[in-house]
This record gives sequence, C-alpha cells and structure tokens, in this order.
Amino acid sequence: MKKIKIAVPATVANLVCGFDVLGMALNDPYDTMELELIDEPVINIKHTDDYGLPEAAEQNVAGVALQALIEDFGNNIGFNVTVHKNIKPGSGLGSSAAGSAGAVVAANHLLNEHFSKEDLVRFAMNGEKLATGVKHADNVAPCIYGGITLVRSVFPLDIISLAAPDLFVTVVHPQIEVKTADARQILRKEVQLKDAIKQWGNIAGLVAGILKNDIPLIGRSLEDVIIEPIRSILIPGFGVVKQMCKEAGALGGGISGSGPSIFMLGENEAIAKQVEQVMTNVYSAMGIDFKTYVTTINPQGVKILSSE
Amino acid sequence: MKKIKIAVPATVANLVCGFDVLGMALNDPYDTMELELIDEPVINIKHTDDYGLPEAAEQNVAGVALQALIEDFGNNIGFNVTVHKNIKPGSGLGSSAAGSAGAVVAANHLLNEHFSKEDLVRFAMNGEKLATGVKHADNVAPCIYGGITLVRSVFPLDIISLAAPDLFVTVVHPQIEVKTADARQILRKEVQLKDAIKQWGNIAGLVAGILKNDIPLIGRSLEDVIIEPIRSILIPGFGVVKQMCKEAGALGGGISGSGPSIFMLGENEAIAKQVEQVMTNVYSAMGIDFKTYVTTINPQGVKILSSE
Repeated sequence: MKKIKIAVPATVANLVCGFDVLGMALNDPYDTMELELIDEPVINIKHTDDYGLPEAAEQNVAGVALQALIEDFGNNIGFNVTVHKNIKPGSGLGSSAAGSAGAVVAANHLLNEHFSKEDLVRFAMNGEKLATGVKHADNVAPCIYGGITLVRSVFPLDIISLAAPDLFVTVVHPQIEVKTADARQILRKEVQLKDAIKQWGNIAGLVAGILKNDIPLIGRSLEDVIIEPIRSILIPGFGVVKQMCKEAGALGGGISGSGPSIFMLGENEAIAKQVEQVMTNVYSAMGIDFKTYVTTINPQGVKILSSE
Repeated sequence: MKKIKIAVPATVANLVCGFDVLGMALNDPYDTMELELIDEPVINIKHTDDYGLPEAAEQNVAGVALQALIEDFGNNIGFNVTVHKNIKPGSGLGSSAAGSAGAVVAANHLLNEHFSKEDLVRFAMNGEKLATGVKHADNVAPCIYGGITLVRSVFPLDIISLAAPDLFVTVVHPQIEVKTADARQILRKEVQLKDAIKQWGNIAGLVAGILKNDIPLIGRSLEDVIIEPIRSILIPGFGVVKQMCKEAGALGGGISGSGPSIFMLGENEAIAKQVEQVMTNVYSAMGIDFKTYVTTINPQGVKILSSE
C-alpha cells in the first residue's frame, strides 16, 4: 500500500460534565485526506478547501503530527498529503484534531500498523499543541479510537475506550468566533468543592450510563455546573437553545469542546430532527448564520475510503 | 414474619477519588440486629455491645431512621430493636450508617417489602443526619444495595448500583479519634480546577474499571489529589502505610470515609494478608493500638440471618 484515502470524523470534546477528559466521535461532518508514502524525508501538504490554513508542514497540524511520527519511526520516509476539510476551523468540532489524527492514522496504515493507537494519539497531540497551545487529547482520542473515550490522564497517557451508545446527535454551529484560548482563559482557576463533587458525581453517572447503556441515566448526568455557566456567555442563544431542545425531547447536551457549536443527544432520529428544527428557529430568529448536522456516534473513528 | 435477625455490613465511603459519591460494602466487620414488629407506636432500642450509644429512639440512628419509615408507612406500628455493634463507632467504616440502614432494611422485611431500596436509603439518611449533621448517602447506599454504589445526586436522590469486583480488601483501624465533623471542617471550600479535572478523570476511570472489570484500571484510578492530602494529616502513619502497602502488592487504597481507618484493595488473599502484615508492622512500631480486617466486597448488603 502506497496511497490511502480516509474519512476523519468531527469530535465533541468534554461531553458536558467531562471537561478535558471525555470526547465522542461523530459520523458527520468529516474531513477527507489522502496520503502517499514517499522515500524522501519531506512532508508536502496541500489543502483543497477554502479555509486558508497554512500548508508549510511546521505550521500545519497534520505536518507536526506526521513529523513526530517520522521521528519515532526513524527511517528515511515522507508523505504527500492532500486535505479536504469539511469540519470548519474554530467550530468546536475538533477540526484541528481531525487534521493531526487523520494524518497519523493514515500514515500508520501505510506503515503496516507499525504504531499502537496510543502512539498515534501521542503524535497527534503535537497538532493540538500547535493549534491551541496545549497538548490535550480529548478530541484526538475519540477521533482515533472511535465512540466515546476517556482520557484519564495525559501525562502519563491513559486512554480508556468506553462505548458508542446507539444515540442520535444534533449539532448546531452558530457562525460566530470563539477562540479556544479565550474560552480557556475566562475559566476560573479555582472552583467550589461542592460544585466539583456535583461534577464528579455526574461524570461517574455518565460513564456508568454509557457502559450500562442506561439512556435515562446518561440524560440525568448531562449537567455541567462548572464550565458551562461561564463559557456559555460567549455563545449567544445558548440558554434558549438548550432549554428548547430539552423540551423538544433531547436527552441533554451542551457546548461542543470550547464552542461555539452546541450538541444535543436524542434517542431517535425523529427527536434529533425536531431538535434541529428548534436550533434552526432560534438562530434564524436571531439573524445569526448557522449550520446544523443530524448524525450518530461514530464507533470506529477514522475510516479508510480507498487504498492502492 | 414477626421477628428478624440480620447482619449489617461495614462500608467504605469515598473510595479514594469518589468523595461524597462512591461507597462499598464489606463482608467484615458487620453488626447484628434483631427487630420485632409490634402493634404499638413505640421504638424500643437495646444495645448489647459496650459502646455506650444512646438507646432513646430520638437519639439513636436506628431510632430516627425507623421513625421516618413509620411516618411514611402511616399505620400504628412499632419495633423492638436489639443491636449488637461490631463496627466500632468513629472508625470510618460506616458504623452509624449500619445502624440506620440495618434497622430500615429489617423493618421492610417485616413489612413484606413495602418500600423500595431508594425509600430505605431516604429513611436511613435521617440516621446520618443525626450522627454527622449531614444527610449523606455514601455509606447507607452500599449498605442497602451491596457492592459499590454511586450516589450521583442526593437531592433528588439518584443511586446507581455499579458492581462488586472480585477483590480483597484489607482494612486497618488505628484506634485514634477522628470526628467526621472535624474531618469535614478542615477541607478547603475551594479547589484548583486542574485538581478537580484530575479527580473527575480518576473517578471516571474507576467507574469504568469497576464496570469493565479492568483491575489494572481500577488500580491506576485510585488516586485522590483533593481530599486525601488534607485529611491524611489527621491519621498518623498514613503516608507510610499507603506506600508500603502498594509496595506489598496492593492495587491502591486510601482513607475509609473520613478515617481514621485505611483500606487497601488487593487482587488475591495472599496479597491482602501481606498488606495486613505491613499495616500491623507500621502501627506496632508506632505504638498505636489498631485492628485489622482481611475481607471481600459484599455484593448484597444487609443479610438475613434468621426470621420467624
């Protein structure tokens, strides 16, 4: 195998009560990437989308992730990379994670699965460092493992693959800008112990709900008393959307990553589409451009579309 | 059925990283209680142990728990109660919870299982309120449900029964006094967000480990960066015991409830006994009286010993 084409999923980090540790892969939207293995130590990156992202390897998330992989592999190899991005940068749907995770998963296929998934997460975290300044793994882990993942610890890396509940996900991306760095900066460095207890009760409930496939428990646990009250200030319409989506039958949901996208979980497609209608109504009325997705949880992460 | 005799298990609240939300029932030590259903609206309590606990119903944890149950039941009933306590008050092993939980479970058997387990927890929490000033459920829940339980929320009450991993538990109770109220008062009301994130990563890992029966993951997740560093100051020898027990093969462990008891999990009886030896050596050398238990996780909670 010399060339491979893959689909790389969007991801929802945090999952409401799991700030910095939980993440979930979606079936839609997704980027496509083509990688070709070459015998020269160069990384050539080309974007076929219109987002104007840097193509120089050392300034591109896929480039720095591949660089880390090549350094570890040790041999005289390189890659030609073509990226077609559909996950809009700055959407809060793991756009940068898709770039770096997709690149190293594809490269690993071309290298006959030389590396473990955990290795790949480690390489991909270099892309996150470039994009956000922090080596976090809550988007790259679900992108690579699929389903819902827990990053129990980053140093040392400890990733636990949970499950991919049979739920629908509705996402709205209001087209406003929220920089991850800003979203991180407005958080308080100290939190009330009583709020932290509530939060770890909820994440424990959410993990139990996911592993026991207890859908009402998942719904009851989707509560964030620490991050959401602060970050939601940056997202116009958040409170109204959340309340109306729950009234329309959503199990619950919240900010995707650091926003501005909002996601909601639903038990079936009919509810997921009603929720989409609610989101559409709110942002249309507010005169804010937006994009919606009705999708499901992606159980496998990056998918191979073709290889030769 | 007019009379019943039961065994009521000791419990380990918090389970290291699950402060105020997790708890686990043990097979040893346990109290025994006898209850007789009578037609008068009185609660007569007699202790056959030497702990000098109050026997007046309104000052006794079993008494106030039964009072709450009777109020809800509505009829003209009462109970003769005989308690033989083996779980030493103030040990951090759920002594007060055993009194109140045992009483209402036994009463419910005599009332043909009129109430749900959740109801029984609600009644038993009145005993905890009397004993500690706070209506917490992290000891009464495992005492009534068995195994390891999660109290996701107290108001409204939301108890999730997790599992009872096939692990050994070694406990040492150094005979020093740590008042629950003091142990609570020394905690800081605010915690660092970065510590809270670590803690909820660990509780998520612990719950996943318990439900997936992933023993190494349980071990890796038994880390408390918030409560233990403060509360362990009240327990002489804690740091040494913990380190040496882990060196002796324990998966991990920490303070049981608010202490002073320390518990350690182990994969088999040989390790559990080695851990007991370590505890014995440390407290013998320090000249502190102590008691140890080598036991397993109790999967069912309160057990019926006899009934007539």
